[in-house]
Amino acid sequence: MASEIRFVEGGTVTSPKGFRAGATFAGIKTHGEDKLDLGLLLSESPCTVAGIFTTNKIKSPSVVLTQERLAGAKLRAVVANSGIANTSVGEYGMKDAHETVELAARHLGLEPEEVAICSTGVIGIELPMALIRESMGKIGVSDEGGNVFARAIMTTDSHPKEVAVSFEVGGKMATLGGCIKGAGMIHPNMATMLCFLTTDAAVERSFLQKALKEAADISLNMVSIDGDTSTNDTVLLYANGAAGNDPIWGDTPEAETFQRALDTACIHLAKEVARGGEGASRLLQIQVEGAKSTEDARKAARTIVSSNLVKTAVHGSDPNWGRVVAALGRSGAEVDEKKIALYINDVCIVWEGLPVPFHKDAVVAIMRGPEVSFRLELNLGDGSATAWGCSLSEEYVTINSAYTT
Amino acid sequence: MASEIRFVEGGTVTSPKGFRAGATFAGIKTHGEDKLDLGLLLSESPCTVAGIFTTNKIKSPSVVLTQERLAGAKLRAVVANSGIANTSVGEYGMKDAHETVELAARHLGLEPEEVAICSTGVIGIELPMALIRESMGKIGVSDEGGNVFARAIMTTDSHPKEVAVSFEVGGKMATLGGCIKGAGMIHPNMATMLCFLTTDAAVERSFLQKALKEAADISLNMVSIDGDTSTNDTVLLYANGAAGNDPIWGDTPEAETFQRALDTACIHLAKEVARGGEGASRLLQIQVEGAKSTEDARKAARTIVSSNLVKTAVHGSDPNWGRVVAALGRSGAEVDEKKIALYINDVCIVWEGLPVPFHKDAVVAIMRGPEVSFRLELNLGDGSATAWGCSLSEEYVTINSAYTT
Repeated sequence: MASEIRFVEGGTVTSPKGFRAGATFAGIKTHGEDKLDLGLLLSESPCTVAGIFTTNKIKSPSVVLTQERLAGAKLRAVVANSGIANTSVGEYGMKDAHETVELAARHLGLEPEEVAICSTGVIGIELPMALIRESMGKIGVSDEGGNVFARAIMTTDSHPKEVAVSFEVGGKMATLGGCIKGAGMIHPNMATMLCFLTTDAAVERSFLQKALKEAADISLNMVSIDGDTSTNDTVLLYANGAAGNDPIWGDTPEAETFQRALDTACIHLAKEVARGGEGASRLLQIQVEGAKSTEDARKAARTIVSSNLVKTAVHGSDPNWGRVVAALGRSGAEVDEKKIALYINDVCIVWEGLPVPFHKDAVVAIMRGPEVSFRLELNLGDGSATAWGCSLSEEYVTINSAYTT
Repeated sequence: MASEIRFVEGGTVTSPKGFRAGATFAGIKTHGEDKLDLGLLLSESPCTVAGIFTTNKIKSPSVVLTQERLAGAKLRAVVANSGIANTSVGEYGMKDAHETVELAARHLGLEPEEVAICSTGVIGIELPMALIRESMGKIGVSDEGGNVFARAIMTTDSHPKEVAVSFEVGGKMATLGGCIKGAGMIHPNMATMLCFLTTDAAVERSFLQKALKEAADISLNMVSIDGDTSTNDTVLLYANGAAGNDPIWGDTPEAETFQRALDTACIHLAKEVARGGEGASRLLQIQVEGAKSTEDARKAARTIVSSNLVKTAVHGSDPNWGRVVAALGRSGAEVDEKKIALYINDVCIVWEGLPVPFHKDAVVAIMRGPEVSFRLELNLGDGSATAWGCSLSEEYVTINSAYTT
């Protein structure tokens, strides 16, 4: 029987055994109510680590240094700051990233090679190293510190986004925790997604990387708030083996269980990010089924969830199926118009490519709820995918056009 | 010496010799102040015609029928309606397209094979054939009818968008005219771009098609209002030879002149469409220079002009260069951060990838004008491209989330 995946109430990055975290206010972040802006997360013992990074050609030196550290295979901690992205600042970017990592390592009693760095915030401004030097020593790390760490990576997020799940693997109970900061972009260039995952399961390194990529592809990579990809996006997954299981290798029943646990946690965090999009009035879920291929389904779901016309219709609770069909048509996915069916929160709106009479008031009422789900059946094959986004509101525009440079 | 291209004051599709147009109100369009909704445009003599159509996989039968007619090579007229897209209406779509064309042909004394059809408006509603049957006969076509025709294709456009240019070719004066309806999308699925071009120059068919494609690639295909591509987009170019020149073949000095005239008219119309985007407060122009290739320059310009974050910054007159650089980085174009220069309306903001001190108030003042231009120099090669779009305003959201289905 397959192992059950259970959500841990109040779960966070310090829910798995052997992880500690903490944060302080260094004075970097000038916006937002929650002033924590410098955080530390570490494993008490050595880790296997996997990572996924932005594909933007302009990268923060914080990303570049972390990529080097990941390749060095000694990582067991991360220092993260919000408020400043450490991007487009010339040679100081890499210098400051190195010094920040050294300060964190010294404070934690680690080698610099064991510490990654993630930054999020405004582009083109240097990290205030004097403040960081002064503040690093104030951070107390504990196994209760997950929530404080989650708050320290927030920029304009309205609340911290955390999760943990537990599962049995090789006769041992293991836990996987995570926190994420979302694509909330009130202030310039804070579009970054930072996601930190921890697990006390022991996992073989190459499988860990493969599992993280697979989970991200059906969760974090299927979220669109406004289509902008940041210079700083980073996802890190630390596995310290404190659960005591035999290391999980690929293509085993244990690997399947671990993948499901990771998928569950990542999908939860992805939906939280979408729900927390700036000025978002509701979560939008696009499920595409029966596509000719998985790739087609992904293209279709992502194109529809990113359409400004679809997003404004959802904001207005308007069951405007024509916009969905038009976005589908330009997505690049194979489409046979006569085979399309479309459901809004399970109410059939389009059948065999033609509108069906539906009780408009009922559908509008459904669309006033906190979650709107479009399910598209293409009836061409077995490909399926789900994408998440949010409505586009006047508030989004107001927030993002505020004069702040 | 290269021939000069001159704008014709008050120019339109009936400015070239031998073209007539007219329109009426059939009762199809229920929105907008300008009630004309059914128009006819024709050449008095046979034509060579080129066309470009939507790449959306969901196509209006009006598009499909016009593509067939274009292949038949007998086209010399078009009937166009606004208010209803004739899309996603099942078998009636093609039936109604055929009947509308037949009604137009009979009224004009032409064969149905000589008439194209274009529709724009709401998806999923059938054309009201009873109204069209009754109204077609009321349309009087004249060589003064270009403006009336231009108004009949408008949906939520605030004003008709027209142009004409004159040029000398083979010792004869020729004229090229055009009108366009833009990506104004107050009401559902009116995202269509319809563009009609006419010229009295004689042009060889395969060169005409190639010239139209080339012109569209640097003009109409470089406009982004909100990224949504319609089910009905159509561009048609009619050349009737009434100027009396010898037919223009490719790779000749005359071809070069004709291409310049066509480019000039199409760029003018493209900018008009961008300027007239829904809720647009200002025109946004993105010039990319020094890219590794033309393809790279096009990718970069289009990605930046489509970025919601860039568009809201322009709405707020915020010289937020970080958003431009981040969009550039994810565009897929080759980038060397240390070589980037960025100008806002000719004021240098970024040099060698780093922000330069600029007089913020002056730049903000410039950005309050009707046109904002970002020029990016990548310093990697000879590729250049320009894209046009508009700011993203609260009004756009209000307009597009209004409950209208």
